[in-house]
Amino acid sequence: MRDDRPVNLRDILRVAPGGRVDLGAIDPAGTPGLPKKAGKEPKVWTRRELESIGTDLASHQERLYAGAKAGHSRRRLLLVLQAMDCGGKDGTTKKVAGTMNPQGLHIVSFGKPSPEELAHDFLWRVRAALPIAGYVGVFNRSHYEDVLVARVHELVAPAVWRERYEKINQFERDLTRNGTTIVKVMLHISFEEQRARIEQRLDDPTKHWKYNPADVDERGYWTEYQEAYQDALTECSTDYAPWYVVPANRKWYRDWAVATLLREAFADLRLTYPEGDFDVAAERRRLAASTSPAKHRVTRR
Amino acid sequence: MRDDRPVNLRDILRVAPGGRVDLGAIDPAGTPGLPKKAGKEPKVWTRRELESIGTDLASHQERLYAGAKAGHSRRRLLLVLQAMDCGGKDGTTKKVAGTMNPQGLHIVSFGKPSPEELAHDFLWRVRAALPIAGYVGVFNRSHYEDVLVARVHELVAPAVWRERYEKINQFERDLTRNGTTIVKVMLHISFEEQRARIEQRLDDPTKHWKYNPADVDERGYWTEYQEAYQDALTECSTDYAPWYVVPANRKWYRDWAVATLLREAFADLRLTYPEGDFDVAAERRRLAASTSPAKHRVTRR
Repeated sequence: MRDDRPVNLRDILRVAPGGRVDLGAIDPAGTPGLPKKAGKEPKVWTRRELESIGTDLASHQERLYAGAKAGHSRRRLLLVLQAMDCGGKDGTTKKVAGTMNPQGLHIVSFGKPSPEELAHDFLWRVRAALPIAGYVGVFNRSHYEDVLVARVHELVAPAVWRERYEKINQFERDLTRNGTTIVKVMLHISFEEQRARIEQRLDDPTKHWKYNPADVDERGYWTEYQEAYQDALTECSTDYAPWYVVPANRKWYRDWAVATLLREAFADLRLTYPEGDFDVAAERRRLAASTSPAKHRVTRR
Repeated sequence: MRDDRPVNLRDILRVAPGGRVDLGAIDPAGTPGLPKKAGKEPKVWTRRELESIGTDLASHQERLYAGAKAGHSRRRLLLVLQAMDCGGKDGTTKKVAGTMNPQGLHIVSFGKPSPEELAHDFLWRVRAALPIAGYVGVFNRSHYEDVLVARVHELVAPAVWRERYEKINQFERDLTRNGTTIVKVMLHISFEEQRARIEQRLDDPTKHWKYNPADVDERGYWTEYQEAYQDALTECSTDYAPWYVVPANRKWYRDWAVATLLREAFADLRLTYPEGDFDVAAERRRLAASTSPAKHRVTRR
């Protein structure tokens, strides 16, 4: 997989629409698409590269923001992150979204639905959390939980979650038609890596707050979850909103890969700064004419 | 002002509650509290220092987040940024909030109120924008606009905006009593610095999106705005939510100062990681017992 042509990582990591993904055949410790120049210390190289990709992401993001703010662009970008527990959703958000201007980010974590959320259609809370024009949204978990945990724990009947694939596809098609670029990433870790990460949380008292005893119970459903992921990725990887599987045992590869996928998606948009709708020379004259204020007076009220 | 004792910048920049601030007496190009060790290249020193302060902020922020997530802490922190146009609210947000984990930030920009917002009390939209427990909120403009622009442009009668000072104080007292630490910062620039910054926006086509012809009109009200600021800072600098005036002509000082104010506010909270409410040894045994999943099967539905 290593060569020195400019890599289009999306082609390498995409779940081919219409095809069937086999997660068991994707090595969670792999580094697909990592260029040869990453050398013998790929961790060092990717960390350095992430800084430069991050600068690009921030630059694209500013143009996206400017286009909505001063132009009439409806464009926005949405990163959807899904993973098994300890798969690195939080870490990826911190490292990758952290390279951008926080003022233009809209990050939403989806937890267990509230009674009010459950009383609505499953997409209700998701619609309410969408980024507005000009923003980069990040979903930490998403509407895909409704075909993952909902299926594995039989929270709804099979007929219900099976119908959701098509509902999700329609929803995402509408979003893309209305200016949202969707980048869906499954962070793919191994059963053993999950064990090691849970153990690290138990070993370190400053990580106990992240530990949830239920995570160990959930491990008992590993195979069922992998199956549910496989079906969701297969059914919902479309031309307009494809899924990417990012091997995520190695955090340095994971961060580099997700940042690269975002940069590629941004590049396609060819975003430019909007032109001003004012006469620069006239504004310059008006500015020059704005006189010095009277010496500051203290108001006596 | 330069010495090498550990500086408590809050004492230096605070508008003394009960006193009267005179903005005309505060040099917008000053660097109060900057330590002697900043040396002859304070720009270089403060930029480097900002990285280290940023690391501390991110660490405090994680404990704040953990306390709400896994403990029962109601603590949160709210940075309120106010300034004249071009005063650096966006830049400060990017540079200072940008050092923290974006997942734990809640940044809200307040623009011209919508008809719906105007139909409510002036604090309605502000209450809806407050950070929840565990989060760091940033207000880019705030409820103070309702005693600034509303006063200068006579959007409400004097009796109305005068009453708001006390309403704001009550509101902020309630917030602080319920776990919110409020850090209110006025970024203080000069009339000439504003002119230079507006000119920069006109000079650079990639900054035209930030340019608004109305900004030049607003310059005509400079003195009225300074008076309105002076009264707001005087009336609403309280023991529980004091105002800080940060000289902001020099961006490197401004960012260093705001980051330092936040670090000092965080330090007072003495935040610690919450203790786990589980038996570590028992969890370790449960984890070790979680067996390897059956080899991955492809579901045939």
